[in-house]
Amino acid sequence: MKRPGLLAAALLTFASALPLPRSASADEGMWTLNGFPTERTKALGFAPDQAWLDAVRLASVRLTSGCSASIVSDRGLVLTNHHCAARCVAQLSTKKDDLSEKGFLAKNDAAERQCPAMEINQLTAITDVTARINGVTKGLEGAAFKEARDKEIAAIEKDCAKSDQVRCDVVTLYHGGRYDLYTYRRFQDVRLVFAPEDAIAYFGGDPDNFNFPRYNLDMALLRIYEDGKPATTPNRFTWSKDGSEEGELVFVSGNPGRTSRGNTVAQLEYLRDVYLPDRLFWLAEMRGQLTVFARQSKDQQRIAKTDLLYVENGYKALRGRLEALLDKELMRQKAEAEAQVKKKVASDPKLAEYKGAWDAIERALRVARDLRTEYNAKEARGTFGSAAMGHARTLVRWAAEQNKPNGERLPEFTDSKLPAMKAHLMSKAPIHAKLERLKLILYLTKLREELGPDDPFVKKVLGAASPETLADRLLKSKLDRPAFRKKLFDGGPSAIEKSKDPMIVLAREIDADARAIRERYETQVESVVDKNTEKVANARFATFGTSTYPDATFTLRLSYGQVKGFAHRGRPVTPYTTIAGAFGRATGQPPFALPKSFTKKKGAIDLDTPMNLVTTNDIIGGNSGSPLFNAKREIVGLIFDGNIYSLGGDYGFDASVNRAVAVDSRFMVEALGSVYGAKRLLDEIQK
Amino acid sequence: MKRPGLLAAALLTFASALPLPRSASADEGMWTLNGFPTERTKALGFAPDQAWLDAVRLASVRLTSGCSASIVSDRGLVLTNHHCAARCVAQLSTKKDDLSEKGFLAKNDAAERQCPAMEINQLTAITDVTARINGVTKGLEGAAFKEARDKEIAAIEKDCAKSDQVRCDVVTLYHGGRYDLYTYRRFQDVRLVFAPEDAIAYFGGDPDNFNFPRYNLDMALLRIYEDGKPATTPNRFTWSKDGSEEGELVFVSGNPGRTSRGNTVAQLEYLRDVYLPDRLFWLAEMRGQLTVFARQSKDQQRIAKTDLLYVENGYKALRGRLEALLDKELMRQKAEAEAQVKKKVASDPKLAEYKGAWDAIERALRVARDLRTEYNAKEARGTFGSAAMGHARTLVRWAAEQNKPNGERLPEFTDSKLPAMKAHLMSKAPIHAKLERLKLILYLTKLREELGPDDPFVKKVLGAASPETLADRLLKSKLDRPAFRKKLFDGGPSAIEKSKDPMIVLAREIDADARAIRERYETQVESVVDKNTEKVANARFATFGTSTYPDATFTLRLSYGQVKGFAHRGRPVTPYTTIAGAFGRATGQPPFALPKSFTKKKGAIDLDTPMNLVTTNDIIGGNSGSPLFNAKREIVGLIFDGNIYSLGGDYGFDASVNRAVAVDSRFMVEALGSVYGAKRLLDEIQK
Repeated sequence: MKRPGLLAAALLTFASALPLPRSASADEGMWTLNGFPTERTKALGFAPDQAWLDAVRLASVRLTSGCSASIVSDRGLVLTNHHCAARCVAQLSTKKDDLSEKGFLAKNDAAERQCPAMEINQLTAITDVTARINGVTKGLEGAAFKEARDKEIAAIEKDCAKSDQVRCDVVTLYHGGRYDLYTYRRFQDVRLVFAPEDAIAYFGGDPDNFNFPRYNLDMALLRIYEDGKPATTPNRFTWSKDGSEEGELVFVSGNPGRTSRGNTVAQLEYLRDVYLPDRLFWLAEMRGQLTVFARQSKDQQRIAKTDLLYVENGYKALRGRLEALLDKELMRQKAEAEAQVKKKVASDPKLAEYKGAWDAIERALRVARDLRTEYNAKEARGTFGSAAMGHARTLVRWAAEQNKPNGERLPEFTDSKLPAMKAHLMSKAPIHAKLERLKLILYLTKLREELGPDDPFVKKVLGAASPETLADRLLKSKLDRPAFRKKLFDGGPSAIEKSKDPMIVLAREIDADARAIRERYETQVESVVDKNTEKVANARFATFGTSTYPDATFTLRLSYGQVKGFAHRGRPVTPYTTIAGAFGRATGQPPFALPKSFTKKKGAIDLDTPMNLVTTNDIIGGNSGSPLFNAKREIVGLIFDGNIYSLGGDYGFDASVNRAVAVDSRFMVEALGSVYGAKRLLDEIQK
Repeated sequence: MKRPGLLAAALLTFASALPLPRSASADEGMWTLNGFPTERTKALGFAPDQAWLDAVRLASVRLTSGCSASIVSDRGLVLTNHHCAARCVAQLSTKKDDLSEKGFLAKNDAAERQCPAMEINQLTAITDVTARINGVTKGLEGAAFKEARDKEIAAIEKDCAKSDQVRCDVVTLYHGGRYDLYTYRRFQDVRLVFAPEDAIAYFGGDPDNFNFPRYNLDMALLRIYEDGKPATTPNRFTWSKDGSEEGELVFVSGNPGRTSRGNTVAQLEYLRDVYLPDRLFWLAEMRGQLTVFARQSKDQQRIAKTDLLYVENGYKALRGRLEALLDKELMRQKAEAEAQVKKKVASDPKLAEYKGAWDAIERALRVARDLRTEYNAKEARGTFGSAAMGHARTLVRWAAEQNKPNGERLPEFTDSKLPAMKAHLMSKAPIHAKLERLKLILYLTKLREELGPDDPFVKKVLGAASPETLADRLLKSKLDRPAFRKKLFDGGPSAIEKSKDPMIVLAREIDADARAIRERYETQVESVVDKNTEKVANARFATFGTSTYPDATFTLRLSYGQVKGFAHRGRPVTPYTTIAGAFGRATGQPPFALPKSFTKKKGAIDLDTPMNLVTTNDIIGGNSGSPLFNAKREIVGLIFDGNIYSLGGDYGFDASVNRAVAVDSRFMVEALGSVYGAKRLLDEIQK
C-alpha cells in the first residue's frame, strides 16, 4: 500500500532533490499542476489545458495523515482507500461493534460518523515565492542559512494563513531551485460514509501486498462537512460509465510523499547502509511484538490492527527499497550520472560555486552517522512511541514557544501551523492503554539498548526503573483524555509548567536534551545537506536542462500513463483481474477469506466485472487513494498500491515493469450496488 | 555471549578459509593443539611443551550444543557458563520449581540432576588424514568432488568410531589445505550440579551484553557420569589460589565456532548484503514475538527464556558483525590483500591452477542469491521452527537413508553420526506446545511471505489452511513424546512410512522437494565454494607462507594473551571489576536487580574481590565456557563474552581493542563459599 506515514521520518535523506538527469522517459514523472508537460501527452492523443488542470487540482484532495483522495459528488463525498481511512474506522470501533470486521454503510446523512482525527486539504492556489526566499538567504551557509530561510518561510506562511480554515505551506521544489507557496482550504469535519469489511478491503493481506494479480476493494467514502452540513463541492470528478480499456491514456492526481531520485551517491549509500537497515530492524521487531499482542484476544486484535497494517506495509516497502539499492547496476548508473555533472562543474567556471557540494553532503552524512543514534533516541523517537507522551511534548514545547516571535519558533509551532497543532491536541481519537504500554516498553528498552544503560540521558529517563515499571508509572497520566489536555492548554504556560502529570513531568525534564541534539542535527546535518543539494540541483540543471519534475514532496502531482500489463518471471501478467478470480483464490482462511456479504450475494454479482487493474503511472507512497481518471476527468479507478517492481521507484522509474495498482471503477459500482445495496451513494457519484 | 548455536546455520559462507594474510599479530590466533606456535609465547616467558599441550587438550571439553568447558576435578566436575547450561536448567524447571529464577545447588551426588539432552566430548586424538582425502578427490570438481570427498570422509569416520562412546569427525582445516580426524570420547550422562540465579548469571542482561565493565556470575557446574557414577577424570585443570594479575600471560582453550577471516571479498559482500541482513530481520521479528509471548504469564516467561536469550544474543552479535562489514576501511584492506594474492597467482606459472578461483566463488554466490530463498524455505527452515517437526523429518529421512550404503547417505545419517542422531531423537527434553505453536505460525507465515502464496510448495504445505489452522492441526502430533518417537524408530521404515501422525505425514510429503533444493544448493553453491576456497587458500599459502592458524571450525583451539584493559570512547577501561561495583550498579529492577542470595549476604562477602576481567585472548562464538588459565594450567577465570570490539573478530583481530570477557576465579570461589555455602564443591575444585 502506498502511504508515506511510516516513511516520513524527519530524516534529511528523504528531502527531495532532482530526479534522474536524463529527460524523463515515457510515462515517468510526478508533475506539478503548474508545470505539467502538456506536449508529452499530446502525442498520446490529449493535451490538457489550464482549465482542465485547475479543475483536476480542485477536485483532488489530500488527507493530512499522509494519503490522497478525490471529490466525487457535489455534496462533499470523497473517495479514498480503506487503508487511508483505517485509523478512523478503528477509532469508531468498539469491542462490541468492530467496523473493521463488519464494514460500515451510512443509510443517510445523519448516520455518517465523524472521524475523530481527520483533516482534508484542498489545494486552492500555488504561488512562486522563490525570489522572496533567495533574497534573504543569499550567500548564507549552515545555521545562518537555515535560520534566515525558516524565518522568511514562517513570515510568508503567516501572511497567507488568514484564518483557521486556510493552511499555507512553503514547498521546497528542485531542492531550492524553486520555492512555491501552496495554499489549502482545510476541512476538519470529515465523516465516514462507507467502508467495506477488512476481509475484502485487504483480501490477500500481507502476502499479496505489492503484488499483482490482486483482488481488493481497498476503498472508503468520506464526506466533508461544513457548519454541520455536507459541503457544497462543485469541483468534482464524475464517474466513468464504461471504465477503462487496455492501452487507454489515464491520469493520476495525488500527493506522492518522498522520492530520492535526485540523491547523490553518498545519500543513497547512507540510505542503504544506515537508514534503511536500522528502520527495517525496528519495524521487524515491532511487527513481531504487535503480531503476538494482537493474537492474545479479539479486543487486542482490534486495537493493534491499524498499527500492524502500517508496520507490515512499511516493512515490505522498505525491504524492496533496500533490495533496489543493493543492486550494483543501479548504483553504477547513479555514480556515472554524478560523475558527468561533476565533470561539467569542473570544466565550467560559471559553475565553480557548486564544486564542493558533493563532498559537503558526504561530510554532513558522516556527521549524521555519529549523531543519529542520539538524535533518534532523544528527538525523533523522543515521545517513546506513546500518543499521550506526544501530547505531553506538544504542550511542554508550546508553553515555551508561544511567547517567542513567530519566526523564531520551532517550525511546527509557527502561527500558520497552530490550527493543525490544536486540532491534533484536541482530537477525540481513543488512546488504548494496553497498546501504549507495549510501545512505551519497546521504545524505552530500545532507548537503553541504543545509548547504553550508563548514558546520562538514559539514567535521567529511567533512573532506577525498568522500562516496564516506568511505563506503568507514566500510564497514570491523564493525557489520554482530550478534556484534560484542553484544560492544560487553556491554562497556558503556567498550568503546563506546574502540572504534576507524570508524562508532563518527564517531557519537561528531557526537553532541553532533545532540543539540543535537534539543534545540532539540524544545523550540522540537515542545513548542510539542504544547502548543498540545492547546489547539486543547480549543477544538474546546468548539465541536463530543466524540462523535468521535482522529487516528490507530499504535494499535489499529476502523472500520466496507460493501462498496461507487465512481465513477471518471464510470464505476461494481464492488466485486469475479475471478481471471478477472487472467488477462485478464496480458501476460506484469512487473509484469503471473502466476507459473507460477498459469498452470500455471489449469485447476484456479475463475476466478469473487472476488479483490479495496473497502469504505467508513476506513483509512490502518499499516492494511496488517488483517483485514476481519463481525459474527460471521469473516474476509472482508485490507486491503492504498486507492484513489486514499483518499490525501487524511490530511486528511479523503470517503465517496463513499474506498475500502479488500482481498484477498477466498475468493481466499485458493482460492489456498492449488488453487494452492499448502497443505491443512495451510487446515485450520488453517478449523477 | 559467545555461542555459535544460532550462527551455525548451514551456510557455506561461514565455511572456514584462511585467516588474514599477514602473519598473525601478537595475541592473535586460534591455534590447533597440534600446531601451537610455542616460539611466540616463549618471548612472553613461557613455552609450552607437548606434554603440557596434551594435558590441556584432555582437560578441555566441548558441549555438543555449541559451547566449551573444562574438567575441574578428578570426579568429573565440569565448569562452563550458565548460558551454556541454560537449556538444561530450563528443561529441569517446572511451573512450580523454576531453577532459572531460584538457582540450583546439589547438596550431594544423589541430588545432581541429569540434563535431558546434553553431550560432552573430550578430544582424545588428532590424526592427519589429508593424503587419504586428496587421494580420492584429485582432479575432481563440483558434484563429483563433493561426492568423492563425502564418501571418503564417511569411510574414515566409520573406521574410527568403534563404539557409541566414540565420536569421529574429519575436520577440514585451511579449507582443504589439511584434513584432520578428530576422535572424541562421548559422555552422554551429564548432570547439573550448580547453577546460580539468572539474576546474577546475567546481571545487566541484554543492555550489558558484549560490554565491559561487567558483573556476571555466568557459571554452571556439571558432572560427567559413567555407569551411574561420577566419572574418574585424572586429566583436569587445578584452581589458582591467587587468580591473575594485570599483564599476566594467560591461555584459553576452547572451541571457537566459525570465523571468516580468510573469506574472499565476494564472500564478505555476500555476508554483508544478503546473509546478515536477512538473518537479522528474522531475529528481530522473532525477538519481538518472544518478548510479548514471555510477558503474557510467568509460565510463558519460563518457557521462552532460553530462546529469547539466544535470539537477543545473536541479534546483538550479528549487528556488530554487520557494522564491521559496513566499514569501508575493512573492505579496502581485504580487497588489497586479495589483489596481492591474485597478482602473485597471475605472475607465477606454478600457481596457474588457482587463477579462476575468485571468479568461481563469486559466480557460485550469484547462484546462491537465486537459490537461497527456496533453500531456506524448504530445507534450512524446513522443519518450520518446530522441535517435534524436526523429529518427524529425522524419522522420515532415516527411513529412507538406512538402507543406503554408508558413503551415499546424507552426512548426518552416516554410521559415525548415528549415536548422536539417536540420542537427540530419544531426548527427554520437554517440548512446549505453546512455544511450538508460536514458532510454527511464524515460520509458516514467513514461508508464504518469502515464496509467495501461489508457489506450488507453499500450496502443498498450506493447502487451504492458514498458518494458524495448519499449526493447530500439526500440533495434534504425538512426536513431542519420546516414547512415541522410540516406537516409530523401533518400528523401522515400514512403521514410519505408514504413520498417520500429522507431522510425519507432512514431512513425508515435502521431503522430495527439500532434498531436491538441498542437492542443487550443495552441488551448485557449497561444493563450488568449498573447492575454490581451497584453491584460494593454497594461493594465499604460496603468497604469504604457512605460519598461521586455520579459521575456526568448532574444534579445540588454544589462544594466548594477557590480562589487559582497553580504551573506549577515549577513556581507559581497567581490566578488573569488583563485587562492590555490582552493588553500586544494582537498581533493584531487572536486569539490574541482584538476587536475594547476594543482597542478604552482603555483609559476609568480600566486596573487593575481583569479579570479571578482560584479556587479549582471541576468541569467538563457541568459546563460551572456555577455561582461562595460567602457565601452570591453573584456572584463573571462565570466558563468557567478548567486548563490543570483539564482534568484528569474525573478519579480523584488532589486538588494541578486541577483548575476551571472563568471570574471575576469585569471584567464583567467593560466591560458592560466602554466598551459596557450597563447601562440598569448593573442596573438590581446590583439591
